[in-house]
Amino acid sequence: MKKIKVSIVGATGYAGEELLRLLLSHPMAEIHGISSESFAGKKISEIYPSLAGFCDMLLTDIDTAIADADVVFAALPHGLSQSLADKVTSNGSKFIDLGADFRLYDEEDYKQWYGLDYTTSLHEKQVYCIPELHREQIKSDTIVVGNPGCYPTSVALAIAPAVSITSSENIIIDSKSGVTGAGRALSLTTHYTEQNEAFGAYKVAEHRHTPEIEQTASELFGSKVTLTFVPHLLPVNRGILTTAYLRLTKEISVEEIHKIYSDYYKNEKFVRVMPLGSSANIKTIKCTNLCDISVHLDSRTNTLIVCSAIDNMVKGAAGQAIQNMNIVCGFAEETGLTLIPPAF
Amino acid sequence: MKKIKVSIVGATGYAGEELLRLLLSHPMAEIHGISSESFAGKKISEIYPSLAGFCDMLLTDIDTAIADADVVFAALPHGLSQSLADKVTSNGSKFIDLGADFRLYDEEDYKQWYGLDYTTSLHEKQVYCIPELHREQIKSDTIVVGNPGCYPTSVALAIAPAVSITSSENIIIDSKSGVTGAGRALSLTTHYTEQNEAFGAYKVAEHRHTPEIEQTASELFGSKVTLTFVPHLLPVNRGILTTAYLRLTKEISVEEIHKIYSDYYKNEKFVRVMPLGSSANIKTIKCTNLCDISVHLDSRTNTLIVCSAIDNMVKGAAGQAIQNMNIVCGFAEETGLTLIPPAF
Amino acid sequence: MKKIKVSIVGATGYAGEELLRLLLSHPMAEIHGISSESFAGKKISEIYPSLAGFCDMLLTDIDTAIADADVVFAALPHGLSQSLADKVTSNGSKFIDLGADFRLYDEEDYKQWYGLDYTTSLHEKQVYCIPELHREQIKSDTIVVGNPGCYPTSVALAIAPAVSITSSENIIIDSKSGVTGAGRALSLTTHYTEQNEAFGAYKVAEHRHTPEIEQTASELFGSKVTLTFVPHLLPVNRGILTTAYLRLTKEISVEEIHKIYSDYYKNEKFVRVMPLGSSANIKTIKCTNLCDISVHLDSRTNTLIVCSAIDNMVKGAAGQAIQNMNIVCGFAEETGLTLIPPAF
Amino acid sequence: MKKIKVSIVGATGYAGEELLRLLLSHPMAEIHGISSESFAGKKISEIYPSLAGFCDMLLTDIDTAIADADVVFAALPHGLSQSLADKVTSNGSKFIDLGADFRLYDEEDYKQWYGLDYTTSLHEKQVYCIPELHREQIKSDTIVVGNPGCYPTSVALAIAPAVSITSSENIIIDSKSGVTGAGRALSLTTHYTEQNEAFGAYKVAEHRHTPEIEQTASELFGSKVTLTFVPHLLPVNRGILTTAYLRLTKEISVEEIHKIYSDYYKNEKFVRVMPLGSSANIKTIKCTNLCDISVHLDSRTNTLIVCSAIDNMVKGAAGQAIQNMNIVCGFAEETGLTLIPPAF
Repeated sequence: MKKIKVSIVGATGYAGEELLRLLLSHPMAEIHGISSESFAGKKISEIYPSLAGFCDMLLTDIDTAIADADVVFAALPHGLSQSLADKVTSNGSKFIDLGADFRLYDEEDYKQWYGLDYTTSLHEKQVYCIPELHREQIKSDTIVVGNPGCYPTSVALAIAPAVSITSSENIIIDSKSGVTGAGRALSLTTHYTEQNEAFGAYKVAEHRHTPEIEQTASELFGSKVTLTFVPHLLPVNRGILTTAYLRLTKEISVEEIHKIYSDYYKNEKFVRVMPLGSSANIKTIKCTNLCDISVHLDSRTNTLIVCSAIDNMVKGAAGQAIQNMNIVCGFAEETGLTLIPPAF
Repeated sequence: MKKIKVSIVGATGYAGEELLRLLLSHPMAEIHGISSESFAGKKISEIYPSLAGFCDMLLTDIDTAIADADVVFAALPHGLSQSLADKVTSNGSKFIDLGADFRLYDEEDYKQWYGLDYTTSLHEKQVYCIPELHREQIKSDTIVVGNPGCYPTSVALAIAPAVSITSSENIIIDSKSGVTGAGRALSLTTHYTEQNEAFGAYKVAEHRHTPEIEQTASELFGSKVTLTFVPHLLPVNRGILTTAYLRLTKEISVEEIHKIYSDYYKNEKFVRVMPLGSSANIKTIKCTNLCDISVHLDSRTNTLIVCSAIDNMVKGAAGQAIQNMNIVCGFAEETGLTLIPPAF
Repeated sequence: MKKIKVSIVGATGYAGEELLRLLLSHPMAEIHGISSESFAGKKISEIYPSLAGFCDMLLTDIDTAIADADVVFAALPHGLSQSLADKVTSNGSKFIDLGADFRLYDEEDYKQWYGLDYTTSLHEKQVYCIPELHREQIKSDTIVVGNPGCYPTSVALAIAPAVSITSSENIIIDSKSGVTGAGRALSLTTHYTEQNEAFGAYKVAEHRHTPEIEQTASELFGSKVTLTFVPHLLPVNRGILTTAYLRLTKEISVEEIHKIYSDYYKNEKFVRVMPLGSSANIKTIKCTNLCDISVHLDSRTNTLIVCSAIDNMVKGAAGQAIQNMNIVCGFAEETGLTLIPPAF
Repeated sequence: MKKIKVSIVGATGYAGEELLRLLLSHPMAEIHGISSESFAGKKISEIYPSLAGFCDMLLTDIDTAIADADVVFAALPHGLSQSLADKVTSNGSKFIDLGADFRLYDEEDYKQWYGLDYTTSLHEKQVYCIPELHREQIKSDTIVVGNPGCYPTSVALAIAPAVSITSSENIIIDSKSGVTGAGRALSLTTHYTEQNEAFGAYKVAEHRHTPEIEQTASELFGSKVTLTFVPHLLPVNRGILTTAYLRLTKEISVEEIHKIYSDYYKNEKFVRVMPLGSSANIKTIKCTNLCDISVHLDSRTNTLIVCSAIDNMVKGAAGQAIQNMNIVCGFAEETGLTLIPPAF
């Protein structure tokens, strides 16, 4: 089978680099182009010495990078992908967007949370795809995939199996993310000495991932869900741990809940429902496309507590984007993604 | 004014050492005795080289340490303080317990969560004291103080001002603690390489601090409160960040909520209600007896979100114990505790 | 080509687990047996949840694990491998020892630094092998390989190209290692709160890797080398950074030195000589079998400073053991080891 | 005794803030003015929320801050202190410079390493003062003190007692510093995710602290010393650990060396020579003005190895500046600096 040509627009950001790193080991993909606004003309390995010897390609402008590609990934700040998607798809390439521009089906949500308008008719064809939930929506003619955000992925996988036993109201999502989530851009918040030995919430109940989380929750529950989402910043490089609090609508044992979850994900290669008594931890999924899920019952308050752990850079970004590429291109979904987590 | 003689039973545990360190700078206290089961006969500075030159006292057995003390602090595993309290108080000394033995007023709670019985009549006289909430309960004849747990302190201070505007039902407490909370005892969980770059929940909805949290919540709300409490372990040395989710019972602006909190704590030296728009962080209270609190309104779900940050070793243990000593001994409450947090 | 059967004795220690993790992705190896003294009868994935779904094999006793294996790896405390090697090789299997028992050619060194005797005649056949330096010493009949220690690997690769331009005297080796180097055994030193935000030297000028370092240095310089070696413990999980100080014996420019190093390693897949002006960092080789080397000239004192960075668990242990297996078994040396380092 | 009025120019940098924090607890000092170029008009507690309630003073321009001060501290980038010193001293105030402008006695060194000229005659009166070595040089008419750099302090205290037993040649200084040493200015190097779990050398053999280190070494040895200095960046907030390698010029036991060090520092309040067998660690001096020193003999190579640990922000900057203020003002040297290190 012939390798496909893939290009990455925004290759020097954290998501772009991770995508490149993973694609370099993908048996069916060949790196065709990599672009960078800031570093065009330099080798990627000058920016990321970790890649020296593995990829010493030159970074180019966008047009050079995307010409003749089969698949183009974009890892750009929101607002920049719409016109790019037009160009890419008119070239006949498929477009997978790691940013926020093709995630929301309701333009009003996009306007409200991102302050921008929809400017392309491609939104009618976009597929927002957490593969475990939406893979059937990708068809042979899908040309634009909205790759999910990191927090929304961790939340959707945590709550999906529970919709038949929990209420769609009073849902609390308390998430904690590693600092790579903030990207490569410098800020005081991500200055080493400010973040090391520190911990706190940020954008409390106003994070832009909220409408995306609610979009999937609403789809799962079959009715409009409004929930509380509070992200926190962890002093680690990688990983998101989401603790979801759901009100049970019936009497049910923790063993039954565990069975519901295990059954739900029994054919999934990337979701591991942990044994009862253990608790999901970002440690055991690091650098992989896995999502570890643990379920816990607070019988005193009839609350279901679900912990999910993903690597925000892999299942929360680059890995899931490749999983989506695999679906779009007809490869086995786990191709290039069978990574075993280091224990430490 | 003459200095009082203070002794520490269990001086080589983390709480005991922190107590010693803080008491060494207390203008009204003199270290009279320090005991250790494991290290009796050694200098404390052999166990903690950080103390060399500041305290090179010998560790002794308990009886030697407590003889003739004015105040005895105990920093022991639960179950060991009851008989010690009998002995200490029969000597005419006051007893401040940093363990769990004198925190719960209901013996049934103690039996259920700790698996032990009440064996001393001193429980009738115990005062559980988070000073900001309970200082009036300490009287001139108080001889046994149950010093609060770290998580319960962070929760009580977060929710106390809100009882008039929130429901006592559906309370969710999501807490995150630094590793000193697990003490000096070795375990795989606290092995460096297991905890570094790791994060997860533990003892989900079954942590022993739950009845203590509910005891204070019930007192504040004036009715029996049952709530959900989930602790997590952070890869930092010190600090607890509690995120409390409370259902508002009325329409109220975030400015009004902020005013309620500011007014509630306006005379407190150790509680800082942060400006609206900022978020409590363990970074800004480290090594001090402070509690920083931020309030946030999720108007979409009518939820009050309160973040509180304390240093688990100071306001959550040794510092609050000294604050209680100050009350018991009639000193100004902040004596020896006016510590300015390092910025990093 | 048929896969070989490999077994790991001591599979639940950190080196054993890392070996298992890497071998699971090795295209020519099949995990045949895994043993553990402490956990026999349990699944390895109960001990390491990170492996769940990738390897859920049962841990067994040693004899069960090694029977019929083609290659046996041992990751045991020193002193335990000699009799095991006898047994393994008499079974007709090849033996690769990650411990210290087959690293030193001079029994006196072993006696002096480890306090034990040589008890098997296999020492006559042992090959100590840092592949970049010793691969030619492995012959078709090699049955026992002493896999190098982590520090010695980082030192040997740093100094090997320099022997023609530097003195064999006055060599200073200042090394810094991540905490995985101390293994999974609990100790106060590796207790999270003792090691986090901490840094210091240990076993100053008395670490057991000293004779091994000197053995290779002596071989390289062609005369007995005695040097100063000081290891330090870094608050990170993985990685060793060695800073080697060598006295130059001639006037030479840094560009010439750089060329000597680049030429020396020009055919090596796992050694990267970094561009002049950059400095080796444990960040850029993490989780891989790479060694990054930077050279620096202090012309004011005519000192050559070489920094080398390896992952102590991979190039310093499990990865190099697999590299040695590849040589012993006639596979391409990089088989199963073409890992691209994550950037963060 | 009346409090003196102290002002800080550059109060929002890390050294400035630490100075402010420590001076707020100094019994003989009153904060008179604090300046900031970037944040004038704001409260310092807006920039550093840790200070809220302790210091909510407004930041001003320089002239406002320094008017009528008894002592002015400057924590500025090099090159900015010379003209400021002229202004401050002409006002009749004393000037303590935490930057590099008044550290070097030889203008040529300043030109060579900093690229600037000496522009004030105050250099004739400057006193470079590590108090343990130079306190006698401060006289009643001293008006300009050059406060030592962090690395030079750690090196000077490590080698000072050894000059009679070691050679002034072949000295190797391998230092490791926490990230606060790089200050509050943003850079990729100090971006959290770049520095966390990372470690490497930087400015190898070309760091600007080299001439300052050599100046004191030359003074101690009584002859011009040229040495090798290599700094590394540690993934911790605070602390410098210096490992110094010195060639012994005579046969001497480690006990004798230890006695020489202990005697040398026997009257010093801030230097602790650790018991033989232990090793200095940044953990045990954190947040204090202490310097812990351990001595080690490599008898195999006749090398003296000295480890010294200081907090780069305290003994390496703000604390030592206050120690110098105490000397200049005639206060007991330890005033305001008797800080006990937290154990973790």
